[in-house]
Amino acid sequence: MLVLVTYDVSTLDSEGQRRLRNVSKICQNYGQRVQNSVFECIVDATEFTTLKLKLADVIDEDQDSLRFYQLGNNYKNKVEHIGVKESLDMEGPLIF
Amino acid sequence: MLVLVTYDVSTLDSEGQRRLRNVSKICQNYGQRVQNSVFECIVDATEFTTLKLKLADVIDEDQDSLRFYQLGNNYKNKVEHIGVKESLDMEGPLIF
Repeated sequence: MLVLVTYDVSTLDSEGQRRLRNVSKICQNYGQRVQNSVFECIVDATEFTTLKLKLADVIDEDQDSLRFYQLGNNYKNKVEHIGVKESLDMEGPLIF
Repeated sequence: MLVLVTYDVSTLDSEGQRRLRNVSKICQNYGQRVQNSVFECIVDATEFTTLKLKLADVIDEDQDSLRFYQLGNNYKNKVEHIGVKESLDMEGPLIF
């Protein structure tokens, strides 16, 4: 299934910048970056659970946030894109 | 239906900062900010079309991007949140 991961990580200090890098790295192992703080991940239920645990372990729950949206298996007609295809600090290829 | 709107707007210059404010303002008329660049909007098909047109009209398609994810009507068990409930520059109340 397609799971969308969006995050806000507070980068006011170097510790926050480290958390942001870690969140990004973990997401890259599970999917494709489509915007600066948005990843699309094709995962099964087990991988989804693992992904959530890994990310929850890395963020500071008092400062950062994660959101997960399950788009299911028939997601292609549920997603639309307008504008540039690449994020400004793109680190990987896009699905679309 | 729930539509998720995510955006990346290049804010390297004041023109980009103006576009970012405009995107945010338009989204606020249709939904709730849940993260810095993520809005959740409850819209019908007509409103969704209007929202897309308005946002596409505001962004610079060579620098910015918009993504729209249709979560349908039964979205409550498709969305999960971890961490702080408020965005750092929160401008409105959250659904969750």
